[in-house]
Amino acid sequence: MCEANAYLIRGNSEELFMEAVDIVENEGGFLKMRNIFGEQKRIKGVIRRMALVEHKILIEETE
Amino acid sequence: MCEANAYLIRGNSEELFMEAVDIVENEGGFLKMRNIFGEQKRIKGVIRRMALVEHKILIEETE
Repeated sequence: MCEANAYLIRGNSEELFMEAVDIVENEGGFLKMRNIFGEQKRIKGVIRRMALVEHKILIEETE
Repeated sequence: MCEANAYLIRGNSEELFMEAVDIVENEGGFLKMRNIFGEQKRIKGVIRRMALVEHKILIEETE
């Protein structure tokens, strides 16, 4: 499976936000995510970087 | 491998922008992509939706 883990950028470190993300929808400044377990989360932010082969999404939270 | 194809949203259809994308960086409104073949492309736009298990990234071009 090709899901990825989503992390929040916290200064110089990264905090796991959601594991095994499949779907990301960007709507009005919010990122809505759904993972392969059917869990859903929403955060105000932008995708700053992705490395898909590494299964990694980095999110910058916005206000 | 878990790369994805990036498509541009064109009205009701989708136009292939880049195959086998690995890295996406979002910098100042531009998306810089690199695929597993080492090719690079840049476009002004936002990631509107991703479906990673489906290997799909949808990009909305901005002005």
